[in-house]
Amino acid sequence: MEPFASPEECEAAFYAAFREGDLGGMKQVWGPDDTIVCIHPARPPLAGRDAVMRSWRDILGNTGGVQVKFDCRKRRHAGELAVHVGIEVIGGADEDPALVSVTNVYALTGQGWKLQLHHAAPIHRESRPASSVH
Amino acid sequence: MEPFASPEECEAAFYAAFREGDLGGMKQVWGPDDTIVCIHPARPPLAGRDAVMRSWRDILGNTGGVQVKFDCRKRRHAGELAVHVGIEVIGGADEDPALVSVTNVYALTGQGWKLQLHHAAPIHRESRPASSVH
Repeated sequence: MEPFASPEECEAAFYAAFREGDLGGMKQVWGPDDTIVCIHPARPPLAGRDAVMRSWRDILGNTGGVQVKFDCRKRRHAGELAVHVGIEVIGGADEDPALVSVTNVYALTGQGWKLQLHHAAPIHRESRPASSVH
Repeated sequence: MEPFASPEECEAAFYAAFREGDLGGMKQVWGPDDTIVCIHPARPPLAGRDAVMRSWRDILGNTGGVQVKFDCRKRRHAGELAVHVGIEVIGGADEDPALVSVTNVYALTGQGWKLQLHHAAPIHRESRPASSVH
């Protein structure tokens, strides 16, 4: 596989792997070392390849993939780091979706852009002003 | 006030303002423009000075300051951005504290290091393995 040439390419591959339940793809997306961090909903931070990959193996194994779309609202790139903030919309078109506030950080590594941090926090249904991010 | 010379100085000032209910201090800490983002627990992202400062005025006005300590577990600095991940411990020594997973991003601006993003997500009490971040 070609290395990701931009944070956006890495992001697209992350959500493709998440949707398709593709653990191999997920392993390609994440950074190579023990500085990576993943914060799943309502959980403490997980750090390092072993803990982060184990969590995704469980999630993708249990679900077979998740119907998720990422609506990226803010980007800040500077040198070898890129910070993206937005909202994940989870669920099919025929159901009331769950919304999740997300911060994704990408880092430029020797193998191209990789996911460095994923922080996902569910939005309560009563606090959903769709216009809160401009 | 002197500009913050490091992400760590900015972080210390952020938590001091949070603890002391100091809205003026909070205004100094955050970045100057509409790219800043704040994600309060269970809420969608707020973007820009107006929305972010309004939210802190409400929080600090309602609470008069919060007993909060930040335990920073992972740092990634690269050029003009710095990403810190850790756990906020909220509450006094005589009570069972609330734990919050936090991502803080700092950016180097013309006025020194400023807070660019604060993402706070409460940790459920049943998922508190204290050793989950190494």
